[in-house]
Amino acid sequence: MKVCRRETFNSAHRLFREEWSDEKNKEIFGKCSHPNYHGHNYVLEVWVDGPIDPMTGFVIDLKILKQIIHEHVLERFDHRNLNLDCPEFKELIPTTENVAAVIWNILRSKLDDKFSLEVQVQETEKNKVLYTGN
Amino acid sequence: MKVCRRETFNSAHRLFREEWSDEKNKEIFGKCSHPNYHGHNYVLEVWVDGPIDPMTGFVIDLKILKQIIHEHVLERFDHRNLNLDCPEFKELIPTTENVAAVIWNILRSKLDDKFSLEVQVQETEKNKVLYTGN
Amino acid sequence: MKVCRRETFNSAHRLFREEWSDEKNKEIFGKCSHPNYHGHNYVLEVWVDGPIDPMTGFVIDLKILKQIIHEHVLERFDHRNLNLDCPEFKELIPTTENVAAVIWNILRSKLDDKFSLEVQVQETEKNKVLYTGN
Amino acid sequence: MKVCRRETFNSAHRLFREEWSDEKNKEIFGKCSHPNYHGHNYVLEVWVDGPIDPMTGFVIDLKILKQIIHEHVLERFDHRNLNLDCPEFKELIPTTENVAAVIWNILRSKLDDKFSLEVQVQETEKNKVLYTGN
Amino acid sequence: MKVCRRETFNSAHRLFREEWSDEKNKEIFGKCSHPNYHGHNYVLEVWVDGPIDPMTGFVIDLKILKQIIHEHVLERFDHRNLNLDCPEFKELIPTTENVAAVIWNILRSKLDDKFSLEVQVQETEKNKVLYTGN
Amino acid sequence: MKVCRRETFNSAHRLFREEWSDEKNKEIFGKCSHPNYHGHNYVLEVWVDGPIDPMTGFVIDLKILKQIIHEHVLERFDHRNLNLDCPEFKELIPTTENVAAVIWNILRSKLDDKFSLEVQVQETEKNKVLYTGN
Repeated sequence: MKVCRRETFNSAHRLFREEWSDEKNKEIFGKCSHPNYHGHNYVLEVWVDGPIDPMTGFVIDLKILKQIIHEHVLERFDHRNLNLDCPEFKELIPTTENVAAVIWNILRSKLDDKFSLEVQVQETEKNKVLYTGN
Repeated sequence: MKVCRRETFNSAHRLFREEWSDEKNKEIFGKCSHPNYHGHNYVLEVWVDGPIDPMTGFVIDLKILKQIIHEHVLERFDHRNLNLDCPEFKELIPTTENVAAVIWNILRSKLDDKFSLEVQVQETEKNKVLYTGN
Repeated sequence: MKVCRRETFNSAHRLFREEWSDEKNKEIFGKCSHPNYHGHNYVLEVWVDGPIDPMTGFVIDLKILKQIIHEHVLERFDHRNLNLDCPEFKELIPTTENVAAVIWNILRSKLDDKFSLEVQVQETEKNKVLYTGN
Repeated sequence: MKVCRRETFNSAHRLFREEWSDEKNKEIFGKCSHPNYHGHNYVLEVWVDGPIDPMTGFVIDLKILKQIIHEHVLERFDHRNLNLDCPEFKELIPTTENVAAVIWNILRSKLDDKFSLEVQVQETEKNKVLYTGN
Repeated sequence: MKVCRRETFNSAHRLFREEWSDEKNKEIFGKCSHPNYHGHNYVLEVWVDGPIDPMTGFVIDLKILKQIIHEHVLERFDHRNLNLDCPEFKELIPTTENVAAVIWNILRSKLDDKFSLEVQVQETEKNKVLYTGN
Repeated sequence: MKVCRRETFNSAHRLFREEWSDEKNKEIFGKCSHPNYHGHNYVLEVWVDGPIDPMTGFVIDLKILKQIIHEHVLERFDHRNLNLDCPEFKELIPTTENVAAVIWNILRSKLDDKFSLEVQVQETEKNKVLYTGN
């Protein structure tokens, strides 16, 4: 049984590699490499897989999952500049793939081992990613 | 090849355990334990996995899947109070997890064994569950 | 310039008139008159029309509008039974129209007279109403 | 890590088998067999599964995936009659299942073998299919 | 008080003027003039404005509005080719504007004069129109 | 008859007044005043009101309206930092209200006087504004 909590956060970011020229960055990342940043309404879906607790009828109390997401993910990334404010992305380009992997690693360390975890991050209506830890 | 039919139903429910005190119910279930019930627009996605019939181009005729869902799920739960009107939840707390498992079991018994079945139930824009029978 | 804040609440309700027979209630309200209640995820849009404050660039600070909605609308109706828990609907059938008019009246008394107000309430994906106070 | 690109296309189609009588077509395909065609806003989700390239932070550049989808899928099917204009459906009934399988085969041949591929096609708000190639 | 009922229908159509050359049609209507038709999932919102009936709490019973829409709009246009099957569009190009005006006129004649009427038709996620009869 | 074109753009921004202290900015704008910017997927709806051209069946060719929006709005604001890159917001705080008014003024100057214009800008799922030029 898998359960999902959906949250959103709003961040600025920019895709570029310091060791590449502006031309190379533009070629690979297009307008996403624009120097003064742009931003997104990220939509986060956190899926937790585990057995139903027969006493509560819950896999995990979604109020608690919500608290974990707020404390450890939204507090870090919401209304922030991923490149400038977030040490996780000092050496890591904040593509949606890397954002999802970083969030997965954060949440994995906060959840009991009996749960499996999947993290979906939607960057725009047209682009999203899903990370299962493999 | 998996095919999906989406339906909705509107029900009242309450989360609580009779053997627990009001304080304990409130601690675990929060405002969902409110005594006079509240309700939801449940969104149900039924996914059926099987081979394509080469004559029809269908895995399963979605008109027939729709009829099965209407007759065996919506007739029971739509515009009902899950706690008071539905014997399935006399002993089982109507969490989204349990609602999904109950619907999965109902539909499993109505579908040919050649099909795999997944049931997703969305309770609110933020909370949903997926049950695959395991 | 009109600004909108969207919020949601989950309530149980039932449509019926005490002075009518069960048959009459069933004829007019259909399955919405079911005695043990059903429920909805109501989606509320509150539109406020007024001039832009040149210092803030806001018509109204949506954080403040959100607080007003939470304190005066969601606290009353979210996770409640509209018929049993809410005195506003002791004598008034909780149709979507009446829910919208009640919310409009609550919010009208909390907002400065310089603002116009519109309230939209969506009961299901297929049914919604808009009230402008006229 | 799986990444998804969402695109849409608008096509006319009709479900029927030439060797069947009108009655038989009507029985199996209902109003979808209407002779003068009807149509849909198809929503296509293309999911590509693979490792993250450490230099770009991408599994696959979604601008490139978008180009592949536009050139090989949308150019063929968007604003077309699937039955009359598309040789893929000369002998194959354009059910959503078959549309998804055809698109999967087209895209499979355009993608590097290191990627896994899933194709989801939504025909209406209520009906969708997912094909993984098995 | 305005109430809204949302319905959908799936139709094929083509935009072209017989008296124009193919080049002129292509210039004005682009790929929408493709000869073998394409199609859409039209989303229809019917808004009715009137006083609340104090006995029912309804402006209009949405079950009755639904029946009117089904009988007079969906029966005519759903799973049809607007150009070939619908006499309303024999002389009138089935643009979204004209589809909305035709539906408005149909519904206007079926509704009591005490109601105002607005019809919104969405053709794609990006294009929609609203007609109020003026 | 009103027609609507929907487009999206992704921008970074920050709400603050230079002449105010950090405390005052924080009090009024909350986390939106964060110095390193955050961002949004803005959803823009442009509504144009006018008569139907009897030759085309269009109020305005939406392909042309799309081009106007792309050339004069998206080229300026998409993948940009509204505060740093856009002279329109050098002296004007980029609240959603001001973004909508700026876009309205840009588009008003590009459209024939026979058309009325409304601009809706959605900043998040919960916040949006509508500007009609008054």
